[in-house]
Amino acid sequence: LTYFTGAKVKPIGVEISSFGMALPDEIESAVQLSKKIGRSADWIKRRSGVLNRHISNISMPELAAKAARIALGDGPRPDLIINASGVAYQVLPDTSVFIQQELGFEGIPSFSIHATCLSFIVALQNAASLIETGVYERVLIVSADLGSRGRNFDEPESAALLGDGAAAVVLEASESASLLAYHFKTWPSGAKHTEVRGGGTRLHPQNPKTTHADNLFSMNGPAVFKMARKLGGPMIQELVDKAGLKKSDIDLVVPHQASGFGVRVYTRYGFDEDKIVNVVAEQGNCVAASIPMALVSALQSGRIKSGDNIMLIGTGAGLSIGGLILRW
Amino acid sequence: LTYFTGAKVKPIGVEISSFGMALPDEIESAVQLSKKIGRSADWIKRRSGVLNRHISNISMPELAAKAARIALGDGPRPDLIINASGVAYQVLPDTSVFIQQELGFEGIPSFSIHATCLSFIVALQNAASLIETGVYERVLIVSADLGSRGRNFDEPESAALLGDGAAAVVLEASESASLLAYHFKTWPSGAKHTEVRGGGTRLHPQNPKTTHADNLFSMNGPAVFKMARKLGGPMIQELVDKAGLKKSDIDLVVPHQASGFGVRVYTRYGFDEDKIVNVVAEQGNCVAASIPMALVSALQSGRIKSGDNIMLIGTGAGLSIGGLILRW
Repeated sequence: LTYFTGAKVKPIGVEISSFGMALPDEIESAVQLSKKIGRSADWIKRRSGVLNRHISNISMPELAAKAARIALGDGPRPDLIINASGVAYQVLPDTSVFIQQELGFEGIPSFSIHATCLSFIVALQNAASLIETGVYERVLIVSADLGSRGRNFDEPESAALLGDGAAAVVLEASESASLLAYHFKTWPSGAKHTEVRGGGTRLHPQNPKTTHADNLFSMNGPAVFKMARKLGGPMIQELVDKAGLKKSDIDLVVPHQASGFGVRVYTRYGFDEDKIVNVVAEQGNCVAASIPMALVSALQSGRIKSGDNIMLIGTGAGLSIGGLILRW
Repeated sequence: LTYFTGAKVKPIGVEISSFGMALPDEIESAVQLSKKIGRSADWIKRRSGVLNRHISNISMPELAAKAARIALGDGPRPDLIINASGVAYQVLPDTSVFIQQELGFEGIPSFSIHATCLSFIVALQNAASLIETGVYERVLIVSADLGSRGRNFDEPESAALLGDGAAAVVLEASESASLLAYHFKTWPSGAKHTEVRGGGTRLHPQNPKTTHADNLFSMNGPAVFKMARKLGGPMIQELVDKAGLKKSDIDLVVPHQASGFGVRVYTRYGFDEDKIVNVVAEQGNCVAASIPMALVSALQSGRIKSGDNIMLIGTGAGLSIGGLILRW
């Protein structure tokens, strides 16, 4: 894209001041899943890298609110709620309303940002810009997805990946921490590689042409990886350039937990395996919730300290590639 | 809400540098609709205030791209595309990808902002903050909705309102024009008053409990108006206070074209009828596209001149009320 100048951008003084995660109690093992998709547990583990996934028996807004309540703690109520999830609870109103309802609030501005699996990264940049321009002070960003409900058991490769989960953060202005750089691009030539074709005006639920499979998740993994491999390297280099950093300055990579391979692939871009957060084996691919869940997992295990350069990064349906770097 | 201080906020130097609108050729009159919903043409006109609505025979991204191409004209390609529509084309990827695809672009960042009928207002503030903080320079915002496809002919009151249309604007930094103020609030206690319950994880298309009506638009008009009447007046006062203006300083009110009554109601808040853009009789309620369509209609008819204070305002499913004031 012609717009990238290679120049360092101006950091925005914001910090994730608190955070929370909600993992459903019920766990589905590879053995349990194997009966549903007609593949062995070994095949599932080898191909997807996912050993266990959590399955929610509560609604998406209820799961989202669990994570949000932990993030909010005893602090004041947020002055903005952004839902940054991959799949909506219903078509109208937008899902942020139902998350606010579960939290028991009234009158808080709320809306959704949808950039498929990268919704959290896009929402974080939007929230940072809104805070920097004085529009809001304390923004709650919530990502929650029930990936398991969109599984197509006739497509074992993608059905083996998906799981349920939620994470939330509070973003506020900061004098020390900052968002150093953000980079995001979308290539519609990859739109067909990752889809849920139904649910909107294209293949409406009432449309007799809409098939069972149209309403479920479908992914052409090899096609996604082919595009991502070509585009990912330059994107990451541009992101660290924008931050005025080198790759070796990144203390922790928090990737989208697309699959076992989709996490390990960051070693090919020059990051040591021990600097890459990898929780896919126990969480699966939780769509837009995966990136903040991986971030919260790293925070909970003490892997992030003040002054660290933390890179959130991933690919999403679109095809989009995006990332940002936080100075903690 | 405790956060509003009554203080004037800092303006953001942005302008709508170009714009476009797409109205489908096919028009459905009240007489034609009367056969579908079992009400007379007079009943439709009297109750809804909508004489004609446009019906699209092309897809939502195609209609969106028509408006976007007019807005972009011969200018450079945008460095961000925001889809600010009420209903998605499909669940994944998000709809902005398909609009970019129709425009023939590759590699432009794109995502969706969803705040139901107020998506355009929320997207405009997000885009302004992104521009002000140096993240993007030329943002294309597109709102397109095929409201006619969500009509429930067994609910004549709401089916009489909806129509199809699209509008797009380009937002850029400006030294003269500005976004003076923005105000937006959401009350989940009104969530049930305006709904499309299906299409997401709540009442999934595959769920045997999902009914025909769940996948179509439903509105309890009297309940919406009761909430809006109570909350709207203070919201509008807070918005003009934030801009450091008085209501009499507003040169043009561009309301959501909810219904004939939903447009005329702004006279009750102290605005003269000739300062309120009213295109609902010929366009109907085009969900999130209605506000930018009304704005572009006013621009095309020469009603907006440099230095004018233009207020965009509306209520949306949520229930949300939101508005912003542009110094043109």
